[in-house]
Amino acid sequence: MSVTVEFHFDFGSPNAYLSHLVIPALEARTGVAVTYVPILLGGVFKATNNVSPAVSLQGIRNKGEYQGLETARFLKAHGITDYERNPFFPVNTLQLMRGAIVAQREGFFARYVDEVYRHMWAQPKKMDDPEVIVAALTESELPVETLMEGIQDPEVKAQLMANTEDSVTRGVFGSPSFFVGDELYFGKDKLRDVEEEIVRQQGART
Amino acid sequence: MSVTVEFHFDFGSPNAYLSHLVIPALEARTGVAVTYVPILLGGVFKATNNVSPAVSLQGIRNKGEYQGLETARFLKAHGITDYERNPFFPVNTLQLMRGAIVAQREGFFARYVDEVYRHMWAQPKKMDDPEVIVAALTESELPVETLMEGIQDPEVKAQLMANTEDSVTRGVFGSPSFFVGDELYFGKDKLRDVEEEIVRQQGART
Repeated sequence: MSVTVEFHFDFGSPNAYLSHLVIPALEARTGVAVTYVPILLGGVFKATNNVSPAVSLQGIRNKGEYQGLETARFLKAHGITDYERNPFFPVNTLQLMRGAIVAQREGFFARYVDEVYRHMWAQPKKMDDPEVIVAALTESELPVETLMEGIQDPEVKAQLMANTEDSVTRGVFGSPSFFVGDELYFGKDKLRDVEEEIVRQQGART
Repeated sequence: MSVTVEFHFDFGSPNAYLSHLVIPALEARTGVAVTYVPILLGGVFKATNNVSPAVSLQGIRNKGEYQGLETARFLKAHGITDYERNPFFPVNTLQLMRGAIVAQREGFFARYVDEVYRHMWAQPKKMDDPEVIVAALTESELPVETLMEGIQDPEVKAQLMANTEDSVTRGVFGSPSFFVGDELYFGKDKLRDVEEEIVRQQGART
């Protein structure tokens, strides 16, 4: 049995996007496939009484500047150039995250994730506006009708809610969150620890 | 000219204590001597409008538990056994931090730091109670009278305030904070980045 690695993500979190960009290299180095689990970050915040950094950093001198410095360091360390702050932040991602559930069911999940992330954080758009969403998905040559119909499906809505509740039950309080087996890691800065834990668990199983 | 590394510390922060325990190994690996800069964390919080994690984590589900998990991981990774949560937390460290300035002036700074940290987080005591402080310093065979008189010296008080203001001006908002040259790193989890930056700056100078 191989090591299970999960990435609990919401398109609204820039730090989840930056993690998404470096996950392929982590997969290549470790030989594991990371499982993407769509969750609704707003639901996590509501269930845990947590708030986004955009809120918690407000009015605190130096702390936001330091987060910006850490982001710049991460971009440089990983040679990331395709990142642009979304001018419409915070974007309500309910439709996009339900769309991720639809994409899982219909078998185009990986491409959907790549494309929606691009529309959020590389060529950022107001991705909580239905017209903007339709235009973006069309540009990406994704099955727009299937998606826009599917996100109204009660089962799809329920699945996203179940993912989110399960995530919180397992200890999640923000984004990005990773599980290596049952070990939780929070934040893009923990990706090195994630990788070391994967290697450790791989060693323990051989 | 060698690389300058500063550790801005307050005895009240458990994460600063845990950093203190692993700094000797970092110094041995890199060949640099870390400069300890006494600051008053309460003053940093006041100047930046920040609060301690003990406050900011209140009422948030999962987040405090995760911090506990990260502390346990740090203890395990570094083989730390001499750490005990101070039952009197939060301890007002004003006298202890002024004492650190006195100890710098009088030439017994390193021993003072080691001993006070021990009385805070290894055999924890109520180190904002003057009687407890005197008993602890006596047990440590430190010059109690010099310290208790020195902390009333206006110049000592002013020096601690100047250190704290300078720290905030340079970007500090919490504890522990490190500078490698002018590069700020926040949190015990950044010690690996601190070390890599030291090595990078050493390489850039040869």
